[in-house]
Amino acid sequence: MLTYNFEKRGKQSLYEYLYQCIKEDILSGKIKSGEKLPSKREMAKNHNISVITVENAYAQLIVEGYIYAREKRGYFASEISRQYMKQGLQKNNQHNKNIKDRNGCRMKEKQEWLVDFNSNHIMYDNFPFSTWSRIMRQTLLDKERSFLKSPSPNGVLELRQAIAGHLSHFRGIDVEEDHIIVGAGTEYLYSIIVQLLGKNSVIAVEDPGYRKISKVYESNGVRCLHLPIDRSGIQMQDMKGKNIDGVHISPSHHFPTGRVMPVSRRQDLLNWARENHGFIIEDDYDSEFRFSGRPIPTMAGMDSNHVIYMNTFSKTLAPSIRIAYMVLPDELMRKFRDKLGFYSSTVSSFEQYTLANFISMGYYERHINRMRNYYRDYRNTIISAIRQSDIYSKVTIEEENAGLHFILGIRKQINDDKFKEILRNNKINISSVSDYCYNDLEEFNHKFIINYSAVAKDKLAKALEIMNEAL
Amino acid sequence: MLTYNFEKRGKQSLYEYLYQCIKEDILSGKIKSGEKLPSKREMAKNHNISVITVENAYAQLIVEGYIYAREKRGYFASEISRQYMKQGLQKNNQHNKNIKDRNGCRMKEKQEWLVDFNSNHIMYDNFPFSTWSRIMRQTLLDKERSFLKSPSPNGVLELRQAIAGHLSHFRGIDVEEDHIIVGAGTEYLYSIIVQLLGKNSVIAVEDPGYRKISKVYESNGVRCLHLPIDRSGIQMQDMKGKNIDGVHISPSHHFPTGRVMPVSRRQDLLNWARENHGFIIEDDYDSEFRFSGRPIPTMAGMDSNHVIYMNTFSKTLAPSIRIAYMVLPDELMRKFRDKLGFYSSTVSSFEQYTLANFISMGYYERHINRMRNYYRDYRNTIISAIRQSDIYSKVTIEEENAGLHFILGIRKQINDDKFKEILRNNKINISSVSDYCYNDLEEFNHKFIINYSAVAKDKLAKALEIMNEAL
Repeated sequence: MLTYNFEKRGKQSLYEYLYQCIKEDILSGKIKSGEKLPSKREMAKNHNISVITVENAYAQLIVEGYIYAREKRGYFASEISRQYMKQGLQKNNQHNKNIKDRNGCRMKEKQEWLVDFNSNHIMYDNFPFSTWSRIMRQTLLDKERSFLKSPSPNGVLELRQAIAGHLSHFRGIDVEEDHIIVGAGTEYLYSIIVQLLGKNSVIAVEDPGYRKISKVYESNGVRCLHLPIDRSGIQMQDMKGKNIDGVHISPSHHFPTGRVMPVSRRQDLLNWARENHGFIIEDDYDSEFRFSGRPIPTMAGMDSNHVIYMNTFSKTLAPSIRIAYMVLPDELMRKFRDKLGFYSSTVSSFEQYTLANFISMGYYERHINRMRNYYRDYRNTIISAIRQSDIYSKVTIEEENAGLHFILGIRKQINDDKFKEILRNNKINISSVSDYCYNDLEEFNHKFIINYSAVAKDKLAKALEIMNEAL
Repeated sequence: MLTYNFEKRGKQSLYEYLYQCIKEDILSGKIKSGEKLPSKREMAKNHNISVITVENAYAQLIVEGYIYAREKRGYFASEISRQYMKQGLQKNNQHNKNIKDRNGCRMKEKQEWLVDFNSNHIMYDNFPFSTWSRIMRQTLLDKERSFLKSPSPNGVLELRQAIAGHLSHFRGIDVEEDHIIVGAGTEYLYSIIVQLLGKNSVIAVEDPGYRKISKVYESNGVRCLHLPIDRSGIQMQDMKGKNIDGVHISPSHHFPTGRVMPVSRRQDLLNWARENHGFIIEDDYDSEFRFSGRPIPTMAGMDSNHVIYMNTFSKTLAPSIRIAYMVLPDELMRKFRDKLGFYSSTVSSFEQYTLANFISMGYYERHINRMRNYYRDYRNTIISAIRQSDIYSKVTIEEENAGLHFILGIRKQINDDKFKEILRNNKINISSVSDYCYNDLEEFNHKFIINYSAVAKDKLAKALEIMNEAL
């Protein structure tokens, strides 16, 4: 007869302890498969516990498959494979070993830089914190119930309406809120585009270009072609005969060169899209930060049937606010509803309502205007500092008048990698345009990217001195 | 000489109006490509505006590519293709036409049901609203700055720690917080799994099963095999020779049958995984709502090297809270860091911190316990009502003791589709288990799914009467 010492059970309930003991005996082989267990009554009597307790323990063992019941015959141990038993018992040791192994795959510590020209963090002091939290609180009160419901697959209606209003006002395009898809970041939206265009599709991206874009596409199984840009952008002759399904571009502000695609090339690309049943993915990131003249018009405004317009709030508000959106052409929106309408929205309703209020109450445009002025001033300060420094005779500033970075060209024929290494050894972090090239494009050598928004003014002079010495 | 009527400019600035006029003349062909524009001075004099105004308008036209400058020769209209011009001008008409077309692809209106056995909405009255909003406000104050920073690709550390604590407490498994990936819903996490296993991988899913699972996998380019389950789950002989890379199962509570996978089948599947370098995707949804006995142990606890454990807060808290997580085995976590470490977290830091506090302050477990009692009582009420109704002699209740639904079996050989249609005509929405079958599995006929959590008690009697008449 099985006998267990119930005094050892600690905080466990009687039935849990009994369940655990029998389970361990089955796993260790002490109770053999097919072996008959004591009846509930016997087991209860033997341990001076109630029949109900035994019943509960047996019931749990049956549910988990350790024992089975035969009518009128009793309870029997199931067949549990020998091979597994050892592993089951060794689990705890293995687990401890694993913990040690795992330390190898923790994230690397971040280095402390004197100046980090790669950092694009916004200045937190500029985030409209009190307004945002006031609207959050208000949303919490107003929307108590409705924010607990699942939003529509393409996002909360109020947010899509607010985005449509913003696009009409700010980007001069009229879009239907029904054609907007809200998602948890642009990267997520790229994966939706892949599903709309098909996994065997080919997407052309700009070379140089933002590496993450093709990484995300490729991770989602698409083939990316990196087409070298000229002054106007992707070149039409490179598009021929390649069965391209989509072209991902930033016509209003190319990264990293800052170039604007002129209307003629836009037309060429739209004609290509019309003739080849292709789509332009217009990545309009950063278009809010143009420091002179009018905003550059969108391609979506030129042909809404062939352009997927896309933008994000992560750049303008805060990177931790994971809300981006895209506007789909009719054909793709129908496809989304037919084939992908089963998806749940990836952004919490609460944040969607908060952002909707923030936009429709006018705070978003006000924030962008304030940030644009802030960045313009900050950029001018940084550029003035360069102009007044000894380095100025050795460089060119290719500002292109927009965005959160500009290009510093080096007049000398230097080795870009060596230059970066020297700077890094002096705690200056910087990237070259060639870091963003896939092909070997000579035109983009000796150009460096100055993300100025996180550069501390008081450390810049020292950094420029070091850079000057390295040239 | 070009002459524009500046009185018509409305609210536009002088330079914007001039820019607009010249642009339209170029698009309409009134100014031909290659045609020389008046010099800035001439243009200013002719319209009695300042040279600066003309300069700004010309600068914008140059940036957008409508005109170009030749040094010492002046400004010329760019070549803009004929084909496009018409379309550019017709844009507004086309847009109006599109709006009409688009109405066809709006979402369908939801029908009003007497009883909707398909709805799984949680009862909003049970959401711990005041606690959640108090923690939100507190998080807002405590984390002011840090919630504006981008979280780690796999989620905010505090949330991963809280999840690890919860899993240890509640599911009896010890996981490293570094192996947890937080994402915007399980659907998003499936797409990450696809990227880890590779786009040409094959994933076995349970038949019957939750349709969305294979839809998401297939949308992401994976081939899904729908393997019929027996009482214990997916059958090992069906797995042979099919190059399966992953098996997606819910061993603690199969949907929709509610079956629990016994330990022997779990072992078989783990052995398959070890021998074939495969992975088990353990979808642990609903495991919180087991109404008697202990929670069913996880497979991740049996072998953390071959099981991807996955769960979500959408079921236990609210569907609009888009936070799910998975625990990756060592090998896949390394792969994630190497190949997918470039991804941004898909959940806003603010909500991650709020949930972390909610869990670590003990509110989450308290909420689950309260909800479990609530659902148990609600379920018992619904089942009692069925037992007391005339329909009871014609049906069986397969409760399986867990989760937010149970199965109503019909003793008669009815036509499932016809039965559902009759009910729908009487405003009763119901699904059959066969709706969730891919293969034609006779065993699962004449079984219907009762999602009870959103059923109004006062309408149930009427619904049961209608159902009884239909049998």
